[in-house]
Amino acid sequence: MAIDTLRQQIDQLDIELVELLAKRQAVTAKVGEYKKQVGKPIYDPIREAELISKRRELAEQLSVNPDLIEDVLRRIMRESYQSQHNAYRCMTQDRTKVVVIGGHGALGKRFVDMFERSNFEVAIIDKHNIGDASSIVERAKLVLVAVPIDKTVEVIAHLPKLPDDCILADLTSLKHAPLNAMLEAHSGPVVGLHPMFGPDVPNFVKQVFVVCHGRHQQEYQWLLEQIKVWGAVIQEDEAKQHDLSMEIIQAMRHFNTFVYGKFLRSQSPDLANLLSLSSPIYRLELAMTGRLFAQDGNLYVDIIFGAEHALKLVKTFHAELEQAITTLEQNDKDAFKQQFKQVADWFGDYSQQFLDESRSLLKTAQDNRQY
Amino acid sequence: MAIDTLRQQIDQLDIELVELLAKRQAVTAKVGEYKKQVGKPIYDPIREAELISKRRELAEQLSVNPDLIEDVLRRIMRESYQSQHNAYRCMTQDRTKVVVIGGHGALGKRFVDMFERSNFEVAIIDKHNIGDASSIVERAKLVLVAVPIDKTVEVIAHLPKLPDDCILADLTSLKHAPLNAMLEAHSGPVVGLHPMFGPDVPNFVKQVFVVCHGRHQQEYQWLLEQIKVWGAVIQEDEAKQHDLSMEIIQAMRHFNTFVYGKFLRSQSPDLANLLSLSSPIYRLELAMTGRLFAQDGNLYVDIIFGAEHALKLVKTFHAELEQAITTLEQNDKDAFKQQFKQVADWFGDYSQQFLDESRSLLKTAQDNRQY
Repeated sequence: MAIDTLRQQIDQLDIELVELLAKRQAVTAKVGEYKKQVGKPIYDPIREAELISKRRELAEQLSVNPDLIEDVLRRIMRESYQSQHNAYRCMTQDRTKVVVIGGHGALGKRFVDMFERSNFEVAIIDKHNIGDASSIVERAKLVLVAVPIDKTVEVIAHLPKLPDDCILADLTSLKHAPLNAMLEAHSGPVVGLHPMFGPDVPNFVKQVFVVCHGRHQQEYQWLLEQIKVWGAVIQEDEAKQHDLSMEIIQAMRHFNTFVYGKFLRSQSPDLANLLSLSSPIYRLELAMTGRLFAQDGNLYVDIIFGAEHALKLVKTFHAELEQAITTLEQNDKDAFKQQFKQVADWFGDYSQQFLDESRSLLKTAQDNRQY
Repeated sequence: MAIDTLRQQIDQLDIELVELLAKRQAVTAKVGEYKKQVGKPIYDPIREAELISKRRELAEQLSVNPDLIEDVLRRIMRESYQSQHNAYRCMTQDRTKVVVIGGHGALGKRFVDMFERSNFEVAIIDKHNIGDASSIVERAKLVLVAVPIDKTVEVIAHLPKLPDDCILADLTSLKHAPLNAMLEAHSGPVVGLHPMFGPDVPNFVKQVFVVCHGRHQQEYQWLLEQIKVWGAVIQEDEAKQHDLSMEIIQAMRHFNTFVYGKFLRSQSPDLANLLSLSSPIYRLELAMTGRLFAQDGNLYVDIIFGAEHALKLVKTFHAELEQAITTLEQNDKDAFKQQFKQVADWFGDYSQQFLDESRSLLKTAQDNRQY
């Protein structure tokens, strides 16, 4: 009897919670409308931090774990950003013409959509109408190249003459070669962009754009402002430095995951059994391998085979693997421990930070477990 | 002006949210007290599923995203489990004596704590009082071996004579050899346990225990009930099958991560720069490598060097790596794509499931980003 009464009380509070979320959503929709009108970025880090810090204080006063209210508010804000992902202010003249080359591709499509939501006039060039490119780029203030990485330089080299004041930009995940190709092909403003996210994100809030400056920054400043209005964050980097970083964290990581997937298949363990045993961390380890193979193999061919130093990097990895196998073969636990310590020292404080971050994420994974 | 009014409305709703969480916490504390008295498991999957499904329905009626209320409720329930992690009912006679060998180690300590919270009498054996083991195990109804994996079999072999009706159990991450050693050392009830989680979990709710049955299951049934009262989930497995699964998902995965860490150090990219560029997925990839090195190297030596088939497995991985390097060296994109497809086919529907799971987790990672 007692437990039924308590559960009814919980149910009643949870009903109030849903009603509260509905009320909050009605208010944030109005905030979104206001931001659109005045051209304020959808993501406001200062307001977000203040709001969370005040509610954390109140939670402590009421003996509620402040991390709980922070996690709940962050999840609610995700929803609020998505409900505001509707229309954005145009940060240059309304109905400015933008041409997206490859605008029917997965990523290109997202940019077509964002420009349309921001009151631009958008035209698309793809292989079917490439013959009309000269007339399509007339009046364009921005030509955005959004084609696969192995086609980017070639497409840029074959661009028709663009209007002198037109911005030429690309979205490729490597930046050095495309940027040079753009500077050569066009004498007006040029900028290299690398959106650090896939086409499947719900909106651009808190997503990172790497910007490699080309020429006449002042003239493409409105494009960077437009990206900020979409809620994204801009990180400047030098093209060559950026490319090397990408080869290490992207091409090499994917290559390693690919080999690990091949290895798993060679052993063919019973995945259903593995998953029933797995703790969140092992489940995530498996998921990080398996998720690669749900995606388009061509994408990984482009990234790995397109990386300038790929072969040198994988050979270094191979050498490190052989060294580790030798320690195992010789049962040399001390050598293993010493190598472990060297890597730990190199990671420094980051390893603890990574452990903390992944723990927090694994708690969410644990919340979602169902039996 | 308008935006200030809207923000005040949001602040007011968020204050109500914190107050609501405080009220809910007061009620769930009473539920915890009730569960302790009657010995009901802290985790009740049926109640949890019903509660979420009803609130999802209400959310849809009020045009709130049902995933939002589910995510928020799951996060709130995590907190509620932790607030109920206080005292548990003892599922055998109160003050039953339990001996934890290695009870000062990180994992052993957690079990000492759980038994004490459940009204058992707990004694610890470690290297300082091992000489008194014979007298310490007198009257014990459970002796739990919680020592490092490379010591387990030896410690079991040197156990003093246990009372005939005493349960002998261990917590090692491999099960075949310890289980055999326990069956040999003791003629009473024997069971092998593998808790699929580390010592840093906040409580045992939804955590998995692999159980490998030894002898006289009826006599250790109360121990399994005790584990369920703690909120954990029991998965039965056969010892040899379990060990092979562990070698693949645990030893080999750690070995690969270890080699990848060595590789990263050899390249020494600027981690601060990498992180400023990284999307949630690359940040997580880095974190999954770096987190290993925040932990005790000895643990990984034990897991990797203790795996019976480790050398055979790493040599298979090595062969797969060499095949992949050859495709890259020969610029053979078709071979790469074909191998990719073979692995994708082997993963089957799991790869899409893994992609979905990791996407949902990455959204949480994105919620937590701050600039």
